[in-house]
Amino acid sequence: MLDDQIGFLIEADKLNTILRRNYTVAGDRRENSAEHSWHVALTAMVLAEHSNEPVKIDRVVRMLLVHDIVEIDAGDTFIYDSLANTSKEAREQEAAKRLFSLLPKPQPSELRALWDEFETRATPEAKFARAVDRFVAVLHNYATHGRGWKENGITRSRVLAVNQRVAEGSETLWAKIQEMTLEAVKRGDLSE
Amino acid sequence: MLDDQIGFLIEADKLNTILRRNYTVAGDRRENSAEHSWHVALTAMVLAEHSNEPVKIDRVVRMLLVHDIVEIDAGDTFIYDSLANTSKEAREQEAAKRLFSLLPKPQPSELRALWDEFETRATPEAKFARAVDRFVAVLHNYATHGRGWKENGITRSRVLAVNQRVAEGSETLWAKIQEMTLEAVKRGDLSE
Repeated sequence: MLDDQIGFLIEADKLNTILRRNYTVAGDRRENSAEHSWHVALTAMVLAEHSNEPVKIDRVVRMLLVHDIVEIDAGDTFIYDSLANTSKEAREQEAAKRLFSLLPKPQPSELRALWDEFETRATPEAKFARAVDRFVAVLHNYATHGRGWKENGITRSRVLAVNQRVAEGSETLWAKIQEMTLEAVKRGDLSE
Repeated sequence: MLDDQIGFLIEADKLNTILRRNYTVAGDRRENSAEHSWHVALTAMVLAEHSNEPVKIDRVVRMLLVHDIVEIDAGDTFIYDSLANTSKEAREQEAAKRLFSLLPKPQPSELRALWDEFETRATPEAKFARAVDRFVAVLHNYATHGRGWKENGITRSRVLAVNQRVAEGSETLWAKIQEMTLEAVKRGDLSE
């Protein structure tokens, strides 16, 4: 029982080997998915009041702590990469099956349920979790003079198109994304 | 309001610049305190049943998400460094004051309360959170052939002396620490 849980936790630590396209706010290196998972969970705690609907914030936090674990097998899929996104679901479904089943029962189905809820935007909690996940990605770009945007040739119109569903979880965070990206354009950190 | 929260979140991201003495499980580099905070929060979720007392696990998770933020100002204090530990409390108190007060009210006192609870082992939640925090440190050493222990000349008797309060939060995790360190000695990864 405990040994299986430890086996899962040792495997899960590999999430810190998965690099995202974003930079850390300090800006000198790309962010990995483990430190991202911490920052996004903290962000959800701090910004809970900005959810459109009342949410059980602890469930949002738990969802965010597991939402990227599948990347250990499936890799990080850049949200602006349309081709990679066509195969993303199948790759991540396989990964979820393998990784969560390392745990003793009933934990595989508990963690899988959290992950499915996030993926399918099934609840107000999932909608807010996804909004926060997108928000921090924009925030890291904003805070690093658009470094990730520039390196990947991303324009403001693409940022807005890809992130518009943030509004389903938080109108406030969606408005802030519009404001931050407008400011980034003015500063020359993002093209129109 | 939102802008102050964002200011705090940008500052908090610096936690990924703080290096611990431990290595990541992948073993090729030292772990930073942001990815550690994620791994320890996930570990608490997964090992909740091993707490001595029933705990609100979501509070444990929230405590662990904020427990190391003070290191942004105070640095990581190696638990086996007796000298550094004499000044640790004062340094971390100052850091908590500055960092949490970046947030709009009432959030500074909410986060501060979580941090104080952890520091003072005031509740079953705090005792379990601290047990898990220590457990993952041993686990990372165990999983990397004692790399952090060896580099710092740590013996099994010191590991046991420093970690014995794990038993206050979880007898099961304390027993596992004894077992893992005994095995590490047998493998030559830890001296007696």
